[in-house]
Amino acid sequence: MTEPSQQIASDVPPGARDQLLDTASAIMREGDIVDISLSELSLRSGLNSALVKYYFGNKAGLLRALLDRDMQGIVHAVDALMAKDMDPSERLRRHIGAVVDTYYKTPYLNRLLMRLVRESNPDEAHRIADTYLTPLSRAYDKLIEDGVRQGVFRSVDPQLFYFTTTGACDRFFSSRLVLQHCYDTEALTEELRDRYREHCIDTIMAGILAH
Amino acid sequence: MTEPSQQIASDVPPGARDQLLDTASAIMREGDIVDISLSELSLRSGLNSALVKYYFGNKAGLLRALLDRDMQGIVHAVDALMAKDMDPSERLRRHIGAVVDTYYKTPYLNRLLMRLVRESNPDEAHRIADTYLTPLSRAYDKLIEDGVRQGVFRSVDPQLFYFTTTGACDRFFSSRLVLQHCYDTEALTEELRDRYREHCIDTIMAGILAH
Repeated sequence: MTEPSQQIASDVPPGARDQLLDTASAIMREGDIVDISLSELSLRSGLNSALVKYYFGNKAGLLRALLDRDMQGIVHAVDALMAKDMDPSERLRRHIGAVVDTYYKTPYLNRLLMRLVRESNPDEAHRIADTYLTPLSRAYDKLIEDGVRQGVFRSVDPQLFYFTTTGACDRFFSSRLVLQHCYDTEALTEELRDRYREHCIDTIMAGILAH
Repeated sequence: MTEPSQQIASDVPPGARDQLLDTASAIMREGDIVDISLSELSLRSGLNSALVKYYFGNKAGLLRALLDRDMQGIVHAVDALMAKDMDPSERLRRHIGAVVDTYYKTPYLNRLLMRLVRESNPDEAHRIADTYLTPLSRAYDKLIEDGVRQGVFRSVDPQLFYFTTTGACDRFFSSRLVLQHCYDTEALTEELRDRYREHCIDTIMAGILAH
C-alpha cells in the first residue's frame, strides 16, 4: 500500500512548494498582514491545502519556510556584496538601496521575524538568530569598521547603526496602513519606492560620512 | 433605584481611570505586546474589571483611550516645542531625543496605532489621522522648511523624513524581542536608551544638516 504522502508526491505539479510560498508572500504583502488563511492560499494558488501539510507540516511550518526563504535571500545578497572589492561608501549605498527594495517586496518581513521568534521554542529562536541575524550583524561590523578605518565614515556603533538603518528603510512600507486609511495614498508603488530609496540613501549616507 | 453605573461611580477610588490606563500601558510595555487580558489588568491594578466597561465600554474602548492619552501627550509636546523661539537644528535635536524617549516609555505605540487604524471604522480611522497624524505632519513641514530656508538643513522631503526619523528611533525598542530572545540583551534599560538616543541624534542630525 502506498503511503498518503507518496500518493500526494506523485500528483503534485512541479514547483508546487515554491508556488505555495510565493502565494503566501503575495497574500501577506497585499493584505498588509502577517498571517494567511489556508483556504485563501489554496484558492489563490490553485493547489490543494493538503500540500501545506505535505511540505510544511502545518501553517506555522509554512510561515517558518517563508521566513527562511526571504532571510536566506538577504543573507546571500549581503554576503555577495561584502565579497566584492568595493569602496565602503559605495557598498553601504548599495546595501541601503537593497534594504528598501527588500521591504518593498516583503513588507511583512520584520513582523514575521518578530512573530516567529516570539512563538518559537528557545532552540528555534536561537536557530533564527544564528542563521540570519548573526551573519547580518557581522556584516555590519565589517562594513562600518572598514569605512571608519579608511576615514570614510564617522565612528559609529555598527549595531546601533543596524537598527537605525533598517528601521528607517522599513517604516514607510510597514506604515502603509496609515498612508492608505488616513491619507488615501498607496505606499507600494514603484514611484514612491524609488523616491523613498533615494531619500534613505541620501539621508543615511550623509548621517555616516566623515567630513 | 440607582443605575448600576452610578453605583459603581460612587464606589470607585479616585484616579481609577488613569490607573487602568497606566496599568494597561505597563502590561503592554513589559510584555512587548499590543493587547491586554482584562483579568491581568484587574489583578495588577487591584481594580474590578467592571470598571473597564464603566469607563471605556469594552477592551477596544480602553485601547482607544490609551492611544488617545499617549498621542495627545506627543502632540502637546511637539506643539510646545514648535511654539518656542529656537534655532531649527536645536529644535530638531530635542525632537529626536523626545521621540526616542517616547518609544522607550511606550514601545507598543506605533503598533497600537496600526492596530486601531486597521480595526476601526473609516470615521474613527479618520479621527485618529486628523487628531494626531495631521498635526505631526504639519509640524514636520514647518520644522524642516524653517531649517531649509535658513540654510541650516539640506532640502529634504519633510514627509519622507518623518518616516525615516520615527522608524530609526522606534526600531531598537520594537525589536526588543530579537535582542531578548536571541542575544540575551534587554533593550529597555536607561543606559541603552541613552546610548541609542545619542546615536539617533548624531546620525539623523548629520543626515540633514547642510554643510
